[in-house]
Amino acid sequence: MEPAFGPSKVSAAELTQLMTDFGPFVQAYGFTNDQVLAGRAVVRLPYAAHHLRPGGTIAGPAMMALADYSMYVALLGAIGMTPLAVTTSLNINFLQKPSDTDLICDARLIKLGRRLAVGDMAIRAEGDADLCAHATATYSIPPR
Amino acid sequence: MEPAFGPSKVSAAELTQLMTDFGPFVQAYGFTNDQVLAGRAVVRLPYAAHHLRPGGTIAGPAMMALADYSMYVALLGAIGMTPLAVTTSLNINFLQKPSDTDLICDARLIKLGRRLAVGDMAIRAEGDADLCAHATATYSIPPR
Amino acid sequence: MEPAFGPSKVSAAELTQLMTDFGPFVQAYGFTNDQVLAGRAVVRLPYAAHHLRPGGTIAGPAMMALADYSMYVALLGAIGMTPLAVTTSLNINFLQKPSDTDLICDARLIKLGRRLAVGDMAIRAEGDADLCAHATATYSIPPR
Amino acid sequence: MEPAFGPSKVSAAELTQLMTDFGPFVQAYGFTNDQVLAGRAVVRLPYAAHHLRPGGTIAGPAMMALADYSMYVALLGAIGMTPLAVTTSLNINFLQKPSDTDLICDARLIKLGRRLAVGDMAIRAEGDADLCAHATATYSIPPR
Repeated sequence: MEPAFGPSKVSAAELTQLMTDFGPFVQAYGFTNDQVLAGRAVVRLPYAAHHLRPGGTIAGPAMMALADYSMYVALLGAIGMTPLAVTTSLNINFLQKPSDTDLICDARLIKLGRRLAVGDMAIRAEGDADLCAHATATYSIPPR
Repeated sequence: MEPAFGPSKVSAAELTQLMTDFGPFVQAYGFTNDQVLAGRAVVRLPYAAHHLRPGGTIAGPAMMALADYSMYVALLGAIGMTPLAVTTSLNINFLQKPSDTDLICDARLIKLGRRLAVGDMAIRAEGDADLCAHATATYSIPPR
Repeated sequence: MEPAFGPSKVSAAELTQLMTDFGPFVQAYGFTNDQVLAGRAVVRLPYAAHHLRPGGTIAGPAMMALADYSMYVALLGAIGMTPLAVTTSLNINFLQKPSDTDLICDARLIKLGRRLAVGDMAIRAEGDADLCAHATATYSIPPR
Repeated sequence: MEPAFGPSKVSAAELTQLMTDFGPFVQAYGFTNDQVLAGRAVVRLPYAAHHLRPGGTIAGPAMMALADYSMYVALLGAIGMTPLAVTTSLNINFLQKPSDTDLICDARLIKLGRRLAVGDMAIRAEGDADLCAHATATYSIPPR
């Protein structure tokens, strides 16, 4: 029942170019696109102490940013370069404190319509089988 | 029916001190606590071009960070200094693109239990009556 | 800051007629529209033992149905008779067990666009100041 | 990466007995437990015209009830008979109108803690590969 995802409709070069349209705050996350397919993206947030919150774990907003960006890439993988696709809603459950390592987000579209896309995102600390967060999000796709 | 909120149980000095337990990434948002009461906080995200995303508006993750932090302050206002209170879930709807100005988040607890708190958060661009985002979140309160 | 809501654009007779387009399962809730304005509806779910779940309290799905229907009425109050408006997402937090009495849901639009509306819903047991549930929902408005 | 689910810790007889603790309104859904494992349940909502809403499709609340009940069964499959486990939050996206046939919900736990469980639920019309709704929910597990 595992769905098959075709090849990405957005190139690595386009995604690199796209990041230059983000301000330095988002660039500073250093997201790397480990895998991009049509409707699926695996994105890495490199571990960095500057994301810590009281208690010494990665702050929730860094995980929310990772989930949101991963869904964006999965969507662009499915529809091609569309910078003005925007998040309309996001729901996240934080499940356990992540280990002190890179976080990996696996984002998959569960619906792709003409105007809206819905996806879910599983975030794990690298090397850990259990999820540290799970999210769903809806994106609005601009008319083309 | 507007609920009354009593005085904050966390001091401005404690909140300033708390921010030093966050890494520089969160500190860089420059959140200011415009008002803190027991169960309510009004927090400002100063406008900065480094938060922009393609299309030239503030990136969604900056608004999610603002919502999450505002709820944290509203909760600490109600229960006093409790750094290890953590978000367990957050749901956000993005309603319109914000203007190029500071964002103001008004966070209010709608339930305060012994172990869990739930709040809602309204985000507006300063001077705009309409919401640009609305969120709800649940926090887990550690045993004291 | 409490928003003002104008008069309803849907009549009581239209809402009564609309209910006949629902199957008997939804009709059986016996929802009554205590107040309908443009973008706001106060709807009552009469207490009935047939909604109980293990533990003897009203089942969550009855509260979800109440929240969803109340938002539908608030939206029709704002845009007039539009039976094919449909829910696209709903998020609910259950805050405490309700008392054994009618439940009252206060639904308010927080955004009304041309194609989408977003609202929040506060559910209380009648006579109780505290919420027993809080929800947000998004509706899709069909082209007119 | 598909997780394996062990045998259910709740028996079919216990689930049948449990349903008698629900009021007739919930019983009337006629849910059938097609498969129950430890942390996974596949539950069927038999098609019935009394669930229709304007437009002639199954009302959203019937799908919310199906998602919520399926998660309850998946959880009981994992922890054994625990009637007082209760939903604390549920988030659902409605993805497309279902066909006029039974609805099948596949609920899986994505986290099982001592006090909280989180799961996701995929709802399809029988025989349809695409989802008609997707939900996530959190349950509170009473002390045992």
